[in-house]
This record gives sequence, C-alpha cells and structure tokens, in this order.
Amino acid sequence: MSVRPLDAAIMKPLVNLSPMPVWLGLDIGGTKIAAVVMDHELRLLSSVKCATQTADVDQLIGSIETAVYTALTAAQVNANQIKAIGAGVPGLVNPATGEVRMAVNLNLNQYPLGSALTEKFSAPAFLENDVRMAALGALQYVRQHATVRNLAYLSIGTGVSAGLILDGQLHRGSHGMAGEIGHIIADPTGEYCACGLRGCLETIVAGPAIARQWLTLRSDLEVDDAGVTAVSVYNAAQQGDKTAQIVIEQVSYYMARAIQWLVMAYDVDKIVLGGGVSRSGADFLNPILNAMAKMSAGSTLAKTMLAADKIMLLPSNYNAATWGAILLACNAKASN
Amino acid sequence: MSVRPLDAAIMKPLVNLSPMPVWLGLDIGGTKIAAVVMDHELRLLSSVKCATQTADVDQLIGSIETAVYTALTAAQVNANQIKAIGAGVPGLVNPATGEVRMAVNLNLNQYPLGSALTEKFSAPAFLENDVRMAALGALQYVRQHATVRNLAYLSIGTGVSAGLILDGQLHRGSHGMAGEIGHIIADPTGEYCACGLRGCLETIVAGPAIARQWLTLRSDLEVDDAGVTAVSVYNAAQQGDKTAQIVIEQVSYYMARAIQWLVMAYDVDKIVLGGGVSRSGADFLNPILNAMAKMSAGSTLAKTMLAADKIMLLPSNYNAATWGAILLACNAKASN
Repeated sequence: MSVRPLDAAIMKPLVNLSPMPVWLGLDIGGTKIAAVVMDHELRLLSSVKCATQTADVDQLIGSIETAVYTALTAAQVNANQIKAIGAGVPGLVNPATGEVRMAVNLNLNQYPLGSALTEKFSAPAFLENDVRMAALGALQYVRQHATVRNLAYLSIGTGVSAGLILDGQLHRGSHGMAGEIGHIIADPTGEYCACGLRGCLETIVAGPAIARQWLTLRSDLEVDDAGVTAVSVYNAAQQGDKTAQIVIEQVSYYMARAIQWLVMAYDVDKIVLGGGVSRSGADFLNPILNAMAKMSAGSTLAKTMLAADKIMLLPSNYNAATWGAILLACNAKASN
Repeated sequence: MSVRPLDAAIMKPLVNLSPMPVWLGLDIGGTKIAAVVMDHELRLLSSVKCATQTADVDQLIGSIETAVYTALTAAQVNANQIKAIGAGVPGLVNPATGEVRMAVNLNLNQYPLGSALTEKFSAPAFLENDVRMAALGALQYVRQHATVRNLAYLSIGTGVSAGLILDGQLHRGSHGMAGEIGHIIADPTGEYCACGLRGCLETIVAGPAIARQWLTLRSDLEVDDAGVTAVSVYNAAQQGDKTAQIVIEQVSYYMARAIQWLVMAYDVDKIVLGGGVSRSGADFLNPILNAMAKMSAGSTLAKTMLAADKIMLLPSNYNAATWGAILLACNAKASN
C-alpha cells in the first residue's frame, strides 16, 4: 500500500474504462483513510492510503472523496462502476441506517455518513464499526488456514476493543457496545481511565498506556514524551532496556488476562490480534504467549482453553478492516 | 413444587387417561431432579422434585424415571402421551447427539443420556447444559416484562457460570464452554481454584467460597463447618454479624465486577441472576446493586452500561431450567 499525495486531477471523472463492476472497501481512521477496489472475481485492483481531514464534516467527506478517487484511478476504473461500498468507522455505527455516533477521532457525532457516501458515489454504502469490520476481515484471513465458527479480533492500539464473530455472524450487542473490553476493570487499584472508571484494561495495555508506563519509570531521562510510543518501548525492550522489558512483561500479562476473558466468555476457535501495538510482531506476540503459558501451567482447563495455537497475529501487510469492508459490500450485494 | 418420596406404585403404567399430548421438562441436578409436565396450551400440569441417585448410571436413570413417573402421575397423564422431553444437565452437553461429558455431579462422563431418555420414554429428548437451559427459561420469564434480544443468565451456586442468549439464540461457543466465567481470573493473588488457576471468580463468589471466607475470618468460633452455607452467611449479615457483612460486601463487589464483564463483553439488555446463592433474595441483590452504583459513580459509560434496571432476580418459585427444558422440547417439536 502506498500513501499518495492529494491531486486535483484525480477528482475528474474518468472515461473510456472497462464497464466491469467494482466494489470499494474503506477504513476511515482518525489520521488515514485506507481504500481498496476489488473486481467481481475478488481480485484486488488497488489499495491506497490518504490523510484524513477532520476539521469539519465537509473536509472529512472531501478527504474520503480524495481517497476513493485515488483508489479508482489506481485501479483504472470509473466511479460509476462502483456496485457497493463498505466502510469501517471508529465509532458507534447503526448498520441499518448508516448513522455514525461518537466517532470522536473523526470529529463526528450523529451524522448520516452512509447516506452521504451513497449520494457522493451513487452506490449503496454498508457501514460498520471499524473493529467489527476488521473482525470480518480477520475471519476471511483465518478461514484460509482453519475452520472457524467463533472468532474474536482483539484490537490493541490507541484504544482496546474486540470484534466478535459468533456462530459465523457479527455480534454487535443491544447497543453496539459488545466487545468493548478496553473498559473492563483489570486492576481496581490502577490509573483512572478517560471513561471515569479506575484500572480499565485500556489504562494498561493501550499504546499510550505502554508509553506512559515506561516514561513514568524512566522519569530520570530527559526524553521528548511525545516521541515515545508503544513501538519504541517494544524496540527498547528488544535492545536490552530493562525498564522496557519490565513494562512489556507486565503489559503482556494483562493482555494474556484479556485473552483469558475472551476465551472463557465466548469460547472462540481463534483470537486474532491486531491494531497498532500488534505491529511490533514477534516482540509483541511472544511475551503474551509466555504469559499465557505461565498462567496455564497448573491448570488442564486453562492449558486447553489457552492453547497457543488459538492465537493468531495478522500479517502486517493485511489490512483487515478494508478487507472486511469489501466483503460486507460484496455480501450485502449478494443478498440483495 | 413439592419433593415427593420414592414410591414403587407410581412406576406402574397408567391407564384410561386423556390422550392429549404433553411435554416434559427436566432439570437433572446433582442432588435433585425437577420434572414438569405441560400441555399443548403451555399450561403447567405438574411440577415435582425427586432425589438424584448417582452411585452408577443405572441408579441415575432409575431416579430420572422416578421423577418422570411422579410428574406424570401428578399430571394424571400417561408416558405414551409424552411428545418430547427437554432436559438440563450439569455438564458438557452435545445438543446434536444428546451425549453428556464431564457431568461430575451426576458421576457421568461420555454417556448418551439423550438416547437413553428417548428409549425409556419413547419420545425425542433434547438435552442442553443446565445453565443454558435456565438462560432459555429466564428469557421466557423476562419477555413477559420487557423486549430482550441479548440476555445473560448468571448462575451463582456451587459453581458459577453464565448462559447467553445472543441475538435471540443460545450461544454455546466452539466447545460448549461459552459463559464459563467462573474461571475468569478475578484476583490473581487469591485462592487456588479446583481448575488449577489462581483467584478464579468461583473461588470468591460461589456458595462454598462465601462460607469458607466467613469461616476463615471466624476461626475463633467453634462451629460445625459443614453447617455453614452461603445462605447462613447472608442471614448472619442481615442479623448484624459484622464479619458476615464484610464478607458479603467483598463478595458482592466481585459479583458486580462479573456483571461488568458480562455487560462489556456481550452488551446484553438484561442480566438475570439465579442459582442457589441468589435465593437469599434482596439480601443477595441489594449489596450487588450498591457495589455497581459505587463502581459507576464517576463514569457516564459505566452508569449507562451498569444501570440497575438491567439486573433481574428471578422469583424464587420460578424454576428457570425446567421452563427452559419444556420450551426447548416444544420448539424442537415445532421445528420438526
């Protein structure tokens, strides 16, 4: 995937292109919009990323348009070939109406984003929360390797939440809040969370929390706080920084606890790990597997339920949310 | 409901009774078997309880027969009128085959109990784990008062687990283990659990754990350990025993934590509380509601998700598991 600069030329209608139908998958994040175009044989025609503008709704829609036309140009297709659009959005999404609420990172609340996309691109738009969309994409990936009926996609990034596929279907819950395990109380004596509770999982294992824990322990250093990320803490641990190793061990223990919750609550076949923090790859995964093994040492039940082969890390070049979005658009089309 | 003594006379076939079809619901517990008989208009014809014999499979089947014939006699119907049987069993149940595994309290492992019941009573038998069966019964009860699509039935008794209705369907998980939250680690520094893990929820809030915590704190007393139950601790707290009050407050806090897990994991409309410990009624419920309110005090998210009206306690005379069993039998019949 490549991030392309904004270009007024790509906004012009394209002509003399093949009339074949295409499907569009979008992952509308707070900083970047990923867009992919796929043909009717599920071949990927293009995959691009563009910056998200969040100053106001018009700018947001403008940046989505830029991403879409950039992807269409790269795919050498025209907007009128779009049969359906799938879009993952970081907020509360009503899949039936396409209305988006509490999308803080997009500066959007109670906005009919689905209708706006349909109007802009003259194609039906199917919206879903981005972590749920990634769960659909993760299901597609895992099914290439194993038979799964129940799957949890655990996203660990700026926030922490899980997308659930139960009995082959997305589970949203009664208010679209199912899987919001970032706000399960993990350490009652821990830090206060932005949500007002104390010791939420997110205050320990989210990216900013990992950076904060390292910075707190290394207050003797004169470092630029803003420059420290979860990835830099993983890198430091890998390079022998003892403090970073202690933080990663502690964080990985709580990630293992979260995996135990997911396994005992839902009894899934696979737990797929994703999100920004997971991009540290083996440095991220191995300490979690170690914590799981240590936790299960004396328990046959836990050894069975927490078997290491239940855990999967997506390849870093697999954008689960855009794949989920494309699949949702294709399936919605198939069922119409 | 009445517990009837075993009676050889009731084993004899009954004659000259109405030929109307009836459905049989069974809750096969480790100490008692509850049996109910219902007619085609969903009227309850009888409801009985008999002792469970668990010395071997033959005795177990014999005690089930006793319960069934006692219920049939009370309903004034004959065994050949049984159209279908639903049975809740405390163990891992394969609903498709009727095979029961790891039913420790019934002294049963890998036994085709469904086939055995079908053979004995010449009617199809539909088996399910007892807590899941109670979740179905709880759904039926709650639907008389509210519209629910997602429901968790949290059973707190000798063991602790949850039965889940998600999007109107029972959620079993990939290995029939969904909702086994009794073995979620609640206090990593707590007591070792029979499962081998440390600080499982069950080691804190299950009936025997409540009794144990009180006995540990009152080791100065010369009491008969075997005589102390969760109910007696709730009673003592009610009567002003400070130690019992401390134990109940602590236990209720962990029950509130478990409710928070369930709400954030599944986003259910209602959490229905049941199981032996819940029979202490308001003495059981109020400290949990207090703990939930205290936990949510500073959090809008938690106040919304943990609203007191999400929690329901079943009436003590409503046997959720036998109602679930009857409903499963009726629905299975309807779909055949």
